[in-house]
Parts: sequence; C-alpha cells; structure tokens
Amino acid sequence: MPGYSRPEGRARRIAVLKDNIPPSPGFSPGLMFEFRIHSTSGAARTGSLTLPHGTVETPVFMPVGTQGTVRALSPADLRAVGAGIVLANTYHLHVRPGEDVIAQLGGLHRFMAWDRPLLTDSGGFQVFSLAGFRRVDEEGVEFQSHVDGGRRVLTPERATEIQWTLGADIAMAFDHVAPGAADEATSRDALERTLRWLERCVKRHGELLDRWTVGESVQPSNRPTVPQTLWPILQGGTHRALRQEGLRRILDMGSWTGLAIGGLSVGEPKPKMYEVLETLGPRLPAPIPRYLMGVGFPEDLVAAVERGVDLFDCVAPTRNGRNGSAFTPEGPLNIRNAALRTDAGPLDPTCDCETCTTYSRGYLRHLFVADELLGLRLLSLHNVRYLIRLAEQMRAAIRKGNGALAAWADDWRRRYT
Amino acid sequence: MPGYSRPEGRARRIAVLKDNIPPSPGFSPGLMFEFRIHSTSGAARTGSLTLPHGTVETPVFMPVGTQGTVRALSPADLRAVGAGIVLANTYHLHVRPGEDVIAQLGGLHRFMAWDRPLLTDSGGFQVFSLAGFRRVDEEGVEFQSHVDGGRRVLTPERATEIQWTLGADIAMAFDHVAPGAADEATSRDALERTLRWLERCVKRHGELLDRWTVGESVQPSNRPTVPQTLWPILQGGTHRALRQEGLRRILDMGSWTGLAIGGLSVGEPKPKMYEVLETLGPRLPAPIPRYLMGVGFPEDLVAAVERGVDLFDCVAPTRNGRNGSAFTPEGPLNIRNAALRTDAGPLDPTCDCETCTTYSRGYLRHLFVADELLGLRLLSLHNVRYLIRLAEQMRAAIRKGNGALAAWADDWRRRYT
Repeated sequence: MPGYSRPEGRARRIAVLKDNIPPSPGFSPGLMFEFRIHSTSGAARTGSLTLPHGTVETPVFMPVGTQGTVRALSPADLRAVGAGIVLANTYHLHVRPGEDVIAQLGGLHRFMAWDRPLLTDSGGFQVFSLAGFRRVDEEGVEFQSHVDGGRRVLTPERATEIQWTLGADIAMAFDHVAPGAADEATSRDALERTLRWLERCVKRHGELLDRWTVGESVQPSNRPTVPQTLWPILQGGTHRALRQEGLRRILDMGSWTGLAIGGLSVGEPKPKMYEVLETLGPRLPAPIPRYLMGVGFPEDLVAAVERGVDLFDCVAPTRNGRNGSAFTPEGPLNIRNAALRTDAGPLDPTCDCETCTTYSRGYLRHLFVADELLGLRLLSLHNVRYLIRLAEQMRAAIRKGNGALAAWADDWRRRYT
Repeated sequence: MPGYSRPEGRARRIAVLKDNIPPSPGFSPGLMFEFRIHSTSGAARTGSLTLPHGTVETPVFMPVGTQGTVRALSPADLRAVGAGIVLANTYHLHVRPGEDVIAQLGGLHRFMAWDRPLLTDSGGFQVFSLAGFRRVDEEGVEFQSHVDGGRRVLTPERATEIQWTLGADIAMAFDHVAPGAADEATSRDALERTLRWLERCVKRHGELLDRWTVGESVQPSNRPTVPQTLWPILQGGTHRALRQEGLRRILDMGSWTGLAIGGLSVGEPKPKMYEVLETLGPRLPAPIPRYLMGVGFPEDLVAAVERGVDLFDCVAPTRNGRNGSAFTPEGPLNIRNAALRTDAGPLDPTCDCETCTTYSRGYLRHLFVADELLGLRLLSLHNVRYLIRLAEQMRAAIRKGNGALAAWADDWRRRYT
C-alpha cells in the first residue's frame, strides 16, 4: 500500500493528499544517477547529479532531517531556502517509528512530505557514536536503542533492506566508524571490516534491485516506485596509506554512482582532514560525485570544495541555530548578546532569507531571551540558507574560472575569521 | 526614530527591511474605527471593523502573541491561516523587552513584523493572574515581574502610555480582575475600581491623542504614525445586576468604538458565562463591536457568537497544539494516540491548512513522539486555522439568514460533542 488513502465516510473532505510522490517531471531512467561536470577550477568542480526525484547542482549542502524532519523547519521552509536534497538517518528512523510504519505511510518521501531527492545514512555512524551498549562482530553490530534501551542488531544486509524500504534516492553502505584519533591498527581493522561489509551491502542491494526490476514486490508494503542507488563509504581514519589503499579497493570492486568519505570531522585536527582530502583528491575518479560526510561548518565547506568535494551534510546549521548562534559573513554571531538589544538591522545584511529580510536583530534576540519557539526556527532557517548560499557562491566562482574561486575564498576567509 | 535603519559600512547589502509599517492601502482617517454591521441572525451579527492597519471581518478570532509572537507561528503562517488581527500582551512586553526597546525597534507592528491590525491587552488580567506578589490600591498595582522578580507598578496612566508606545490599533483600559468565583462584594469592589481606572485611562489616552493630533512628539522615540483607539472592559463577575450596572455606567461615560467583556472564562461554570452574555445581549448598543476576552474553545466561540459577540482571543489553539491536542469537527484529538501510528489520513479531513493538506496523522504523531519542533508548529497552525474557519463558517451562516446559524450550530454541536 504505497499510497496515501483518504479516510472514508466523512462529509466535506477537502484535504487532498497526493497518492504518492512521483519522480520529478524531467525524470528519465536513462539519465538516472548521471553526474555531469560543468566546470572546474583547480580541484574544485561544479556539476549536476540526476536523481529519481530531481537534479541536484553541486557543490551542495544537504540539511539533515535526522528523524524525518529537519529540526524546526518545514519542507516549505527548505524549498524556500533552496535545499535541493535532504539527508535522513536510517538508525533513528529504524528505531522510531520503524521503517514498516514509514512504508505503510507511503515511504520516506511521502512520510516527510519532501518531494525532492533524499539520501539516507546507513546507521553505521550512529551505532558507533550514539548507542550506549554495542557489540561489534563480523556479522554486524548489536546495540542498545537510545529510545527504549532495547537490544537491536544492524548488519550490512539489514541496513540495506531498511534503506530500500525507506526509499531514498541514495542509500549508503553500512560502515565501521573508528574514532578520529584511532591508531593505524584500529583504523585498518575498521577499514577492512567496512570493505567486507560493503560487498555484502552491494550483494543485498543488487538482489533487491533485480527483484524490483522484474516487478517483484520486494517489500509487500512498500515497493518503491523508483529505484535507489548505493554509495560506498571510504574509511581509514587520518592514515594516508590506509585511505589510498581503501579507495583503490573500493574502485576495484566495480563502478559507482558516487563515493563518500567517512570517518572525518570526528575529532581529528582540521589540518589532518584537509591532508586526507589532498591525498585522495588526485586519486578520486573525476566522473563520480564525492560526498564528505558530516562536514558542514562554513570554513570546512570552503576548504573541502577547494579540494574537490561535491556534497556535504551536517547538523551544525540547525543545532547552532537552536543555540542562538548564527552564521554571518563576519563569523558566528551570538544572538543573545546584550549589544543587539535595540539593533534594528538584519541578522545578516547580505542574506536573502525570510529571517534576514523580515526581522531585526533586536527582535530575534528578544525571541531567544524570551524562550520563544519562533527564534529556533528563524535562526535555523538562516543558517541553512547561509550554507546553501555559500555553495551557490562557490559554484558561481568555479564557473567564472581564471582563479576566481581562490580569490573568492581568500576574500571570504579574510572576512569570516 | 520610528524607522528601521540599515547598518552602514557593509558591502553587498541585500536584506532590505521596510522603514515602517504604514496604514493599509485602503486606510482613510474618516472611516477609522468604524464598525459596519452587514447582517444579523437572532443576537448574532456579521460586521466589518475598520482599523488603521486594515479591516477585520467579524465575528473574528484573534490569535494571541503574548510576547510579540504567536507561539510557534510566524507572521507568514498567520497570514496563511487568514488571521486578520492579533493580540499582544502589554504586561509581558513591558516586562521584557520593555516598551522603550520596542519603540526603538520601530513599534510593535514593525517589531513583530505583523502589518495587519493589533490589539494590546492592558496588563490588568496578567497582574491579577500571573504575578506572585501584588499590592492593589487606588493608584494601581504593584507586582513582581515573573521574569526577574523585580517590583514594578502599573497604573491606569502607565498602562495607557505603554500601549500608546507599543502602537497597536486597539488599546484596552487597565482593569481590576476578580476571580471567577468572587462574591458580590468582591466583584462590586473590582467593578467600581475598574470604572474609576477607566476614567483615568480615558483621560490619559485623550491627552496622548491630543498631543499626537497637533503633531507633538509624545514619545520621543516612537510617535505612532497612526492613532489608536481605547476600549473599556466591563467587569462584574457572574453577578447579573453588577454587569448591568457596570454596562450602563460605561455607556454613560461617552461613546466608544468597541467594548470588552472581561472577567469571564476565569473559572466560573460555563452556564454562568452564557447567562451573563444573555443578560448583557439586549442591553449592548448594537453599533459597536463586542469583544469577549480570553475566550476561545470552539464550543464557547459558537455559544458566544449566538449571543452577539464579535471578537475573541485565547491561547487555547496554540497551547493545546503544543500539547498535541488538535481541534477537529468531531472534537479534540490527541495526536499521541497509538491508534494513529499508521494513520495515513489528514489530521482534519475538512480543513484546508498546510498541516491537513500536507501531512498524515501518522507523521504528525511521529513528530510528537519524537519531540520534534515541527509538530508544535503544525498543530498550532491547524488549531488557529480551525478557529478562524469556525468564525468564517458562522459568518456565512449568519449572512444566509432564515435560521441558518441555528441549524449550523445544532449540526456543529452534534458532531463536536
């Protein structure tokens, strides 16, 4: 039952919900998951990634809708700030409300009323960072739900099946994430397991895809109307040799529609992260998009785009927004600052979002000081818009060519820091 | 400095905030505060009330923006659900951020980015219900701020001046509110004091208006660009004789552009409230709008419109919404109910709001169970829309005539309870 059925037996039914969220109008199976590079500037590039629910212009920032909602924002808000793709978390949605509930409610797109592309993380990062108890073995990870404390198991096969049931455009392979400061032996261990698990994810995903292709109902309750792709995650910590080896072995496994770099921005020093990106850069196959997982502070976005990254996600804009911290061209601004009490100016005078074009800093400060919910939303909205605009600005600079990106980035850093 | 100045010395300034919120395009001083009755049905009537910031169709429900924001909703949300006028609380805004701050930020309309009519309550109800410590004497009320515990004083003159500084379209007289179960002597005392305070409010309001009329700057920081009217509040508890006497003495004081009935819905049994309305009904002058303060449960709205009331306000739709309780034609619905887990239908199938036309009950339940902020907003939005539609439906029934309102109300009650 993929659709959205309306209750029977009631008069004056005027709320009409779409039966399903179909592929976007321009969708053509032939172009599916195609990535076209439009222009480059050093290692940086602009491109467009065609997915079942729409085409995404890269570099792009993906807002995070952990529990099937980008915290404090509605889908209309996300469209208004120009979000092209949103990330949701398999771990959280599996634990609550469960993928079967989401399937019965029409799949993840219909569930969260988001008709543009979606990407689901595999749950690997969450079981290694959130769960209290966990036991890792070759089969998978047994962990304790953060919601009800119950024991659950995620394996590469289960993570793949859950994501297929959710029905995002892009699913991620189930990975073993080591801490940022892990030594080489620990990182090697996580890398090797991630590679073995990747093979199992690919196998299970291929089986689901084969059965979908011949029209077989893979999940009785939710056969997606459009297919899904699977991206691998490269681990290896901050160890350059491991990263290189891992990348080579992933590429040797076959062709991919995209590739994610995991295990960064997990506590290691920033120069280490940039070093890994620089090591990988020339070795990454140009024709597929590169997704740097969990990265989303403005300075990291700029540095990573310069090093050839195409996609990003991070909770920073919404989490910081809810804490009263706003991204501005001059760096973060604490909206609770008493100096803003009678500041009649906009939060960020260069920004075109609803928050900056409608309200004064003094009013936004009042909302936070008075604990008003609208404040959480307005700063989250601005911060997400800020990162989306940052990506837009970098795309424009890359397209311009002739070192425009480097000049733009220098200017940006000079103001921001 | 009534305007909204933009900060100097920054490049690429694209956030442009309007310098002020002017009167509505159709505003004509000659029609100001005029109330036109269009049709009647028994004691009920439809009308339109012309205010400096727009014309309000009555009967009308006013959402409550206690601290200068209707909790969890933005001005755009309020426009989308058809809100024509919003109420804000003088007590809360005086205590935080203070009327001088609001004046420096351009007045209340500009502060909260609401360009339609506003009404401010005088603070009387709050100092008698919220403040911990309070000392009442003939001069006014000394109370303890619920924010910082500091001692403050509100008098009829101060309440009038603060409201003038805030600049809402309608200001309320400062009143002495007795508890719902107050005996006749206590209610008499509150009524007498309210009448004496009303004279002082009228005097102070007249002085402010006179100085405004000759172009004098009444508040150096915030001379309103349009004038304001003052409405009296009738007290008298549930004592019919006191209510009648109070009404007569208020009407004897002069002509009014509107009249509020206070001290109801404060703990007395509902039949008592209806009895007071029925007592007052035939005695209220037809040509001016009647505002029943603090009333906003659906059944009360219907009963009061049938008894001739034109305006309402209440925090119920937003407070209940944040608690997960939704108004529906079949009565309140608890969105956390486990039976809604896989309910793919809309919250209220008869409703046209964003919540009901976009999301399933199952998703809304998930948002509440998962403590997601979007849930608070979506149920608040629906509940406010529900009450605004209720008023719209009653206006349509009254216009239809021939007992259509009674038939509509019978049908409505049969379904709701």
